[in-house]
Amino acid sequence: MKKNLREIAQFLGAELIGDGAVSIEAVSNLDNIARNSITFVQTEKDLARAESSSAAAIIIPSALSTSKKSAIKSDNPKLCFAKLLGLYMPADKPKPGVHKAAVIGAGAEIAKSAHIGAYAVIGEGSKVDSGAVISSGVIIGESVYIGEDTVINPNVTVYKGVSIGKRVIIHGGGVIGGDGFGYAKDGDSYYKVPQVGNVVIEDDVEIGSNVTIDRATIGSTIIKRGTKIDNLVQIGHNDIIGENSVICAQTGISGSSVVGRRCTFAGQVGVSDHVNIGENVIVGAQSGIPSDVEGNQVLLGSPVVPIMQAKRQYGAFAKLPKLIIKVSQLIKRIDDLEKRLAEIDGRK
Amino acid sequence: MKKNLREIAQFLGAELIGDGAVSIEAVSNLDNIARNSITFVQTEKDLARAESSSAAAIIIPSALSTSKKSAIKSDNPKLCFAKLLGLYMPADKPKPGVHKAAVIGAGAEIAKSAHIGAYAVIGEGSKVDSGAVISSGVIIGESVYIGEDTVINPNVTVYKGVSIGKRVIIHGGGVIGGDGFGYAKDGDSYYKVPQVGNVVIEDDVEIGSNVTIDRATIGSTIIKRGTKIDNLVQIGHNDIIGENSVICAQTGISGSSVVGRRCTFAGQVGVSDHVNIGENVIVGAQSGIPSDVEGNQVLLGSPVVPIMQAKRQYGAFAKLPKLIIKVSQLIKRIDDLEKRLAEIDGRK
Amino acid sequence: MKKNLREIAQFLGAELIGDGAVSIEAVSNLDNIARNSITFVQTEKDLARAESSSAAAIIIPSALSTSKKSAIKSDNPKLCFAKLLGLYMPADKPKPGVHKAAVIGAGAEIAKSAHIGAYAVIGEGSKVDSGAVISSGVIIGESVYIGEDTVINPNVTVYKGVSIGKRVIIHGGGVIGGDGFGYAKDGDSYYKVPQVGNVVIEDDVEIGSNVTIDRATIGSTIIKRGTKIDNLVQIGHNDIIGENSVICAQTGISGSSVVGRRCTFAGQVGVSDHVNIGENVIVGAQSGIPSDVEGNQVLLGSPVVPIMQAKRQYGAFAKLPKLIIKVSQLIKRIDDLEKRLAEIDGRK
Repeated sequence: MKKNLREIAQFLGAELIGDGAVSIEAVSNLDNIARNSITFVQTEKDLARAESSSAAAIIIPSALSTSKKSAIKSDNPKLCFAKLLGLYMPADKPKPGVHKAAVIGAGAEIAKSAHIGAYAVIGEGSKVDSGAVISSGVIIGESVYIGEDTVINPNVTVYKGVSIGKRVIIHGGGVIGGDGFGYAKDGDSYYKVPQVGNVVIEDDVEIGSNVTIDRATIGSTIIKRGTKIDNLVQIGHNDIIGENSVICAQTGISGSSVVGRRCTFAGQVGVSDHVNIGENVIVGAQSGIPSDVEGNQVLLGSPVVPIMQAKRQYGAFAKLPKLIIKVSQLIKRIDDLEKRLAEIDGRK
Repeated sequence: MKKNLREIAQFLGAELIGDGAVSIEAVSNLDNIARNSITFVQTEKDLARAESSSAAAIIIPSALSTSKKSAIKSDNPKLCFAKLLGLYMPADKPKPGVHKAAVIGAGAEIAKSAHIGAYAVIGEGSKVDSGAVISSGVIIGESVYIGEDTVINPNVTVYKGVSIGKRVIIHGGGVIGGDGFGYAKDGDSYYKVPQVGNVVIEDDVEIGSNVTIDRATIGSTIIKRGTKIDNLVQIGHNDIIGENSVICAQTGISGSSVVGRRCTFAGQVGVSDHVNIGENVIVGAQSGIPSDVEGNQVLLGSPVVPIMQAKRQYGAFAKLPKLIIKVSQLIKRIDDLEKRLAEIDGRK
Repeated sequence: MKKNLREIAQFLGAELIGDGAVSIEAVSNLDNIARNSITFVQTEKDLARAESSSAAAIIIPSALSTSKKSAIKSDNPKLCFAKLLGLYMPADKPKPGVHKAAVIGAGAEIAKSAHIGAYAVIGEGSKVDSGAVISSGVIIGESVYIGEDTVINPNVTVYKGVSIGKRVIIHGGGVIGGDGFGYAKDGDSYYKVPQVGNVVIEDDVEIGSNVTIDRATIGSTIIKRGTKIDNLVQIGHNDIIGENSVICAQTGISGSSVVGRRCTFAGQVGVSDHVNIGENVIVGAQSGIPSDVEGNQVLLGSPVVPIMQAKRQYGAFAKLPKLIIKVSQLIKRIDDLEKRLAEIDGRK
């Protein structure tokens, strides 16, 4: 792949600055500058690094007016970078067709343009829509729907009745639709509550490696459109995760909780069951959310509090050992003051 | 499936209240009331919701004397709900037989009533007992025993020598019997301690998706009868988990620890190695257990303390920033008192 | 297997104490003493236990001068134990050859001494070197390299372009090379940043069950020589993990972070993205590392602080509820002192 900077500016619909004839042969990030490549920056500090690097051109944010190198100016340099990376290093899509070592259940419908890999199993009555990729070793239960252009990577398990939308990506080892964790106490032991619901994954969702999403007891566990889920995340039965949310690695959401649209959870967050979380909530790493949380705030801590309060608390925590010493000293000084005051009183 | 309320009361061995002729066509929970369905409640507040819903009948706890709808009265409405759900929506069991695309090792015994799915592998000398279900893509090593009516879901890995009891359920992607994490320091590097023990899973255990249970270094890692383990839980080598315990998602128990009977661990709990935990211990989410813990208590925090203490500590933590300000003010006031007292002393 | 103690001392290159003719038929640890077995101890307390056990001989640390039983004396009893365990219970290696139910992609090279299990898939142009074991159900993408004597356990997924060194062990269900978690915000939704880098795993690394290691956006995610990674660990895109480090279960390291050599992370630790961690850093369980950390220290807490400080803080935390009461009492006493002083002043 080789394009000049003018062609790239046109492709991105962005402003060209400098020499449009510069030839671009690769896309780089700042840590790995390749020969004759274009890179991107988001801050002035990074611009200095990029300018002194061997990059042939830079994508800069509109706020930065100039660049010592030829540049593309954009309100969203990272988006430009992502689009160029896709242009220069397009994903190779496996060929349509069903591998001869694959088992297709009775009544299953596989679109002609879909790919079914080796040792994949498609359950009875399931449907794999056009352009979808079911990789090797994927096991799909009965009556599952896999939407157009969805990619399911190797060794994923999809239980029966799950519905997956268009352009979804599920990475290796994920388990979609396992039983929710529900029991009725029966004396000392536990009686399993049958989990007869399903999982619905809407369009444009991406799900990381070894993620687990449990089926609903009754009804559906739902991951809404555009949401991105990182590796080793747990989504409990009957959860509803709102549109365009981001859930980082190893976060766990207990059953019957609802997460609003455009939320961002950092890694290792925990959410209790039956919790409602509003829209646009940002939650810091390792936080714990035991109860309902209103929208439009940034939270941290276990249990979570607004981030400014959390920072004050953590700052104060660091001072706590000294505070205890200080208070002991104060007690002595007050003891002393009281003694002296008693003496003064006594003298009169 | 269609039964009247009188038949349901008989099936459950519970008391009928109101019209026994009401026809019940489905089982619902409060969030998803289906047409002509029966639902269940556990509290007075939920009873009001159920009464104003379109449910045809309600299972109510014995403590609640009346219901505006026809009802079933029980000491354990949730258990009744679970049993009815199983009655109305029975799990379909796969047919007995070995799929033609499955590999059965030399000397392995597969009961006639067992099911072995596509692309499953049963190692040499292993035994799959009657009624057991080995789903597609499950890989079972040598000399493994799988008990009666146990269900192993797709893409599970069972290493050699593992013994699994009756009516066990293992969900997709689980790894049972991987090597324990044991090394001897050898200069700057680590020398692997061979893990020659196994894993024993007793009857009626359920294990969630992508759970990992390590084999013992020597001896056995044991999950005792009736215990339920949620998704993405880690059980270390040589752990012994007592009967009828419940371990929620993403909890991790390091090696050589012992958990008593009837314990409940909420999500994301961590337990150090060589820790003994008594019976009937309840541990709150995200707690950390660094050392031995006696039975019959409720714990929270990292490190854990009794829950009342934890709540006092967390309550106090929220007040800490203000406390620091208060103490600074006190110091000034005491400085001032001391100055004034010195003046008074000086005046004399 | 049967050897006398003299032969064992020779095998280990260690000092024999007592009767070299003692016959050793097994290797035990203190919790599971087998008949005619040798065990090992590391402390004087354990020596007493071993001496009163039925063990036939003991491996003792050089610091302990005597033993009531015949013994082997070593600077590293645990290493001796590991080596003896390997001698007495050698791992059985699967036979060389490609299972007839395995798919080998065009141009893939499989060494004659390698083992490829049932239902394994080796992608186009990949190479499996001599002595390597690819277990059943393992799916390996295109252009992957698997080094000599590396063992990949069942149901592991290795994405295209991954490079794995010699004598590496990867346990069941691991996913190596899934896409890094990278998106560019595009209005309300997220645009996927193509992940065109790979993963490099160096020699002698061991990776636990269901571990996820993401491919780099550009360049490589690297696990350096000798590092040991426990179950359910998450390694983010572009991370570099130094040599001979140990990462315990359920730890998560976000993208673009660097961990130095010989670090030890206990379980459930979290590391933010773009964080640099020096060499020889030990991090306690459930800790959180939000920013750079210098080498050669022991850390604990979320956020981490030096362990002595963390212990002081946690100790102080336990005293916090009482401290709040104390400060309230001080305020009253100071109020009183001020009142009395005002009276004294007034009297004059």
